[in-house]
Amino acid sequence: MSEELGVTVKKSENFSEWYTQVVKKAELADIRFNVKGFLVHMPWSVRAMKLMYRAFEEELEKRGHQPLMLPSVIPESNFEKEKEHAEFKAEVFWITEVGSERRKLEERLALRPTSETAFYQMYSLWVRSWRDLPMKRYQSCQVWRHETKATRPFIRGREFWWIEAHDAFATREEAEAQVKEDAEITERVMHKLFGIPFLFFQRPEHDKFQGAVHTYAADTVMPDGKVLQLPSTHFLGQNFARAFNIKFVDKEGEERHVWQTCYGPAIWRIFGAIVAIHGDDKGLILPPEVAPIQAIVVPIFFKGTEREVLKKARAIERAIVGGGVRAKVDVREEYTPGWKYNYWELKGTPLRIEIGPRDVEKGQVVLVRRDTGDKINVEDEELLKKIGKVLGDIQSNLIRRADEFFEMKRSKAKNMKELKTCLKKKGGLVRVNWCGEEGCADLIKSETGGGEIKGTLFGKDEKPSGKCVRCGKRAKQVVYVGKMY
Amino acid sequence: MSEELGVTVKKSENFSEWYTQVVKKAELADIRFNVKGFLVHMPWSVRAMKLMYRAFEEELEKRGHQPLMLPSVIPESNFEKEKEHAEFKAEVFWITEVGSERRKLEERLALRPTSETAFYQMYSLWVRSWRDLPMKRYQSCQVWRHETKATRPFIRGREFWWIEAHDAFATREEAEAQVKEDAEITERVMHKLFGIPFLFFQRPEHDKFQGAVHTYAADTVMPDGKVLQLPSTHFLGQNFARAFNIKFVDKEGEERHVWQTCYGPAIWRIFGAIVAIHGDDKGLILPPEVAPIQAIVVPIFFKGTEREVLKKARAIERAIVGGGVRAKVDVREEYTPGWKYNYWELKGTPLRIEIGPRDVEKGQVVLVRRDTGDKINVEDEELLKKIGKVLGDIQSNLIRRADEFFEMKRSKAKNMKELKTCLKKKGGLVRVNWCGEEGCADLIKSETGGGEIKGTLFGKDEKPSGKCVRCGKRAKQVVYVGKMY
Repeated sequence: MSEELGVTVKKSENFSEWYTQVVKKAELADIRFNVKGFLVHMPWSVRAMKLMYRAFEEELEKRGHQPLMLPSVIPESNFEKEKEHAEFKAEVFWITEVGSERRKLEERLALRPTSETAFYQMYSLWVRSWRDLPMKRYQSCQVWRHETKATRPFIRGREFWWIEAHDAFATREEAEAQVKEDAEITERVMHKLFGIPFLFFQRPEHDKFQGAVHTYAADTVMPDGKVLQLPSTHFLGQNFARAFNIKFVDKEGEERHVWQTCYGPAIWRIFGAIVAIHGDDKGLILPPEVAPIQAIVVPIFFKGTEREVLKKARAIERAIVGGGVRAKVDVREEYTPGWKYNYWELKGTPLRIEIGPRDVEKGQVVLVRRDTGDKINVEDEELLKKIGKVLGDIQSNLIRRADEFFEMKRSKAKNMKELKTCLKKKGGLVRVNWCGEEGCADLIKSETGGGEIKGTLFGKDEKPSGKCVRCGKRAKQVVYVGKMY
Repeated sequence: MSEELGVTVKKSENFSEWYTQVVKKAELADIRFNVKGFLVHMPWSVRAMKLMYRAFEEELEKRGHQPLMLPSVIPESNFEKEKEHAEFKAEVFWITEVGSERRKLEERLALRPTSETAFYQMYSLWVRSWRDLPMKRYQSCQVWRHETKATRPFIRGREFWWIEAHDAFATREEAEAQVKEDAEITERVMHKLFGIPFLFFQRPEHDKFQGAVHTYAADTVMPDGKVLQLPSTHFLGQNFARAFNIKFVDKEGEERHVWQTCYGPAIWRIFGAIVAIHGDDKGLILPPEVAPIQAIVVPIFFKGTEREVLKKARAIERAIVGGGVRAKVDVREEYTPGWKYNYWELKGTPLRIEIGPRDVEKGQVVLVRRDTGDKINVEDEELLKKIGKVLGDIQSNLIRRADEFFEMKRSKAKNMKELKTCLKKKGGLVRVNWCGEEGCADLIKSETGGGEIKGTLFGKDEKPSGKCVRCGKRAKQVVYVGKMY
C-alpha cells in the first residue's frame, strides 16, 4: 500500500491527473502490464464491475434476454459478409499461427472486436419460424480493439469488458420498439442505479456503426466537460439478416428476413464514468449499488477496551450483513482509525460506521456519509433501518449532484461564435440547429477544435426554428455538439 | 426445438453417443460455430456454469483469495523466463498482426493458455515485504489451447472456462499447506455441492505441469470407465519466483524468494463431468446447486379450469421463489403437460411440481423427483418446507449414487494380467505397486493400451508391500492406473 495515501490534486483543477491518481491509489487498475493498452484489474474494480454486470443482466433478463457464451475468435471471412461491417477489420488483433513452430492457420482469426458476425451465423441456424421470435440473447464478455488513440484506464483500452445483446424480430416495429427498451434499460440501470445522467441520441448518418441503419447512443459529460459515449444501440434493419441469411416463416407461411437490433453497455467504460463523475478530492465515491463494501465498520481502540469494541463491531457486521448490506469490519491493527478513514474514503465506501468505547457504553454507533461527510449518531436498535435509509439518501444525493452537474453542462448556441464560447468555457453538450450536411459537420468540428455533432434527441422530435449554426441555410435538425473523449 | 425430444440411446450401451445427444438435445452447446474446437454455449449451460463459478469463488474468497482480471494476451518473452514453462508455447494461439493491412506486431502475443507468466510479473511488482504475504489472487476467465486431440464439448476444447488461483507465501510450509487447502476446496465444492467424487493424486515426476516442483490433481471416473482430470494444483516451489524475481523482505530484514502454488478448477470440464456422471437415459440430472431452475411448475389444464390452475401455479412460484428456490412456471400453451415433463427431465431440473384442477380443490400439489421419479403429494402449507427437504434428499442421493459408481470403478491388481483385465473389464482406477521408473510407466501404458500412472494418493502415504506390477523389482510407491480422456 502506498505511503502517500491520498489524492494530491484537486479534481476541479486537474481532472486528468486526479483520475490517474484515483485509478492508482484506490487500487482499481495497474497499468504496468507489459502489453500496451492492456490493464490488470484489481480486486476493488473487479468486485464493483461484477455488481454492475449483475444489475444490467437482471434488467436484460426481465425483458426476455437469455445468456450465451460465444467463441472469442471469429474467422476473417465472417467480417466480409456484411460489406460496411468489414471496416471493423481495421481495429482487429489477428491470430495467424499456432504452436512453437509458427504453423500458419488456413484463415486468420479475429479476436472479436464485437460479435455481430458470430451471433448472426448462429441465428441463421436457430431462427426457423415466427415461433422462434423474438430471439433476444446477450453475452457478458471482453472484446479487443487495436485502438490507435491514447488509452486510459476504463475509458479507452485495447481490451474492455461489456455486454452485447443481439435481438431479432419478425417486424420492423418490434425492432424499433427495442431501441426504446434499450434506452429504458440504460435509464434504469445506468442513471437510476449508478447515477450517471445521459442524453440518448440518434447519431447522424455520417457517424453510424458499421452495418447499421441507425445508431443510437447514450452520452454523458465528464468533469472536464468532454463527452463520453456510453451504451449504444444499433438498429440494423435487415442488413445482417440478408448478409447472414437469417429468415423465418411467418404465420402466413411466407419466408421473411428478420429485423435486428444490438445493444452494447460497456461495463468497463461505465465504471470509468462512475469513478470520474461521483468522485471528489478525497477519492472515489461509489453509489451503494456498485460498492463492494457498502458500510465499513471501523473500531476505535483505546487501551483496555479493545475486546468490547471489537466484539460490538463484529456483532454489528453480522447484523447488517444479515440485513442484506455488504459490510465489513476493518480489523487491521497496524493502522490508526484516522488512517482507515482516509483509506476507505479513497476507496469510495458509501458509509462508515465508527465504534469507540463510549459508543459501546451508550449503545450507539456513529454513521459517517462518504458523499457529504455528515455524522449521525444512531442507537443500536435503529441501526439496520437507519443504514437502509442513509444508503438510499446517498444514492439519491449522488444522482441529484450528477444531474445538476450534467444540466449545468448543457447550453444552446445560435451561431458559431456562441458555440465556440460554450464549448470552450464549459464543454458539455451544446444545442444547435443544423442543415444536415456532413460538410457543415466537418467545418463545425475543425472550427471548434473538435466539436462533434452527436445527433438528435431520441424520441423527442425537436423542430429546428432557425438556421444552420454553420452555413446559415435552413436548418433541418436540432442537434447537440460536444467534444469527445 | 427439436421434434425428436428425447435421447435415443441408452447411457449404459453407448455412453459417447448418449453424451453427444444430451449436449445437443438439452441445448447445452451448439458445435456448429465455424472455428474448429470452439463452441457456442447455450443459455442452460451458461446459467449452470455461472452458479458453479459462484460456488467456487465463494469458497476461494472465504479462504482469503481476492479476484483479479488480467489481460488475455501475454507476450512471447514472458514464457521464456521459466525454462520448463516455455514448453507451453507448443499449445498457443499467436496474435501476430493488427488491422486491415496485416501490420506486424513487434512481438507476438499469446492468447493465454494459462496465466503464470502474466500473474507473476505483476507479483514481482506487488510483493515487497512479509506484510504483503500471503498473496492469494484468482481470476475467472477463459483460456485457449490449440489441442490436437479430438475435442468434445465441456471435456476438451480449444477455448475453455476456468478459475485460476495463484498464491504466494513466505515459507515452503505455507505453500504446502495450500495444496491441502486446495484439496479441501475441491472436496467441498466439487464433491459435496456438485456430487463429483474424485481421488486427489500427486502426479509422478514424468507427468508434472511445466515449471512445477510437484503436480496434484483430482481425477474422477466417467461412465465409460475412462478417467477425467479435474482441478489440479501445482506446487511451484521457488521456480517462478526466481524466474520472475518475486522477492520479499522478511521480518528479520532478509530478502527472500516467495514460495508459490497455483490451482485451476476448470468449471467447463467439471460441468462436463456433471452432465456425464449424473445423467440417465432421460437426459441430464442437475444437482440442485447447479440447476438454473430447481423446481419447474407444470400446470395441467383441463377445459374450464385453466384460470384457477394457472393462478395457483403462479402463487406457488412466487411463494417458493420467495423462499429462495429457483422456480418457474412453464406457461407455454402450445405443449401438453406430458411433453413438458419430458422436456424438463431432459434439461435435468431436479424437481417438478404438477398442479391440476383436483390439486387446486384438495389444496395440494404433486412433487416429482427427477433422480428417482418418486411422486409425493404435498399439502400447500407444507410445500416450502418439503421442497427444501426433497432438494436436500436429491442432493444426497446424487452424491451417494455417484460415490457408489466411483467405488465400483476402483480395483487392485498384483500383476500385468490382472491390471489388463481390470482396465478392460471396468476401467476406472486400478491400484498397483510401482518401482518408480518412467520406463516401466511407458511399458504399462503401451501394454495396457493406454493405462497411465496417475500418481500416489495425496496425504495417504500408502506403503507398497510387494513388487512393481511391471518389472517385478522392489516397488517404491502405491499408484493408481487409469485410461484417460
